[in-house]
Amino acid sequence: MSPPDPAPFAYEGLDRVLHERARLGILTSLVAHPKGLVFGSLKQMCGLTDGNLSRHLAVLEEDGVVALVKSFPNNRPQTLCRITERGRRRYLDYLQVLEKVVRDAGDAVKATRSSGHGRLSEA
Amino acid sequence: MSPPDPAPFAYEGLDRVLHERARLGILTSLVAHPKGLVFGSLKQMCGLTDGNLSRHLAVLEEDGVVALVKSFPNNRPQTLCRITERGRRRYLDYLQVLEKVVRDAGDAVKATRSSGHGRLSEA
Repeated sequence: MSPPDPAPFAYEGLDRVLHERARLGILTSLVAHPKGLVFGSLKQMCGLTDGNLSRHLAVLEEDGVVALVKSFPNNRPQTLCRITERGRRRYLDYLQVLEKVVRDAGDAVKATRSSGHGRLSEA
Repeated sequence: MSPPDPAPFAYEGLDRVLHERARLGILTSLVAHPKGLVFGSLKQMCGLTDGNLSRHLAVLEEDGVVALVKSFPNNRPQTLCRITERGRRRYLDYLQVLEKVVRDAGDAVKATRSSGHGRLSEA
């Protein structure tokens, strides 16, 4: 038997690069589209502005989580955004911790509901 | 039938106040302990320093998500930290979005695994 975790709610595996809200959306889109998405489609799916998406993609590219490929089909600039294999593994590790948070939270909510604490009045 | 969501990965419900890693740990601890936790226990469970915990509690108190009650049992200062009913409702709303992220991510990972994209080589 392993000793009880002294810090069960530390969630150190919640990788800050991936946990940020916009980046979490970007990476979930890219995991769902492993062949990549062009900048404009990714922007729309994530509800981001050009500037915001560019900024977050720069952070992710810097860390090797995404790869950006620029091309000029029909003489128009296009950026294809793709999650790298390394990024995908990092995302999967992060996802395991996120699943644990959701389980812990669900357990906590259920336990307090059944004992009636959910109906405590406002402080 | 509702029209398809134009920004399915925007996750606007990922409340930034609650989503921050340390605060997510703090709130999950407090949801699991609705009668409250003293500062020292909360600090240990979340693996935080005094300074970090104080800073995050201040953000959460400012937003009415937690209530802090100071007392002096046996002439020693003690701070009891508790999630408010409003905070609990906000946490539950947040949790629904987090569950959706985990579902979306799981679906995305499964779909790409079965089509063999998981074995793409590194860029």
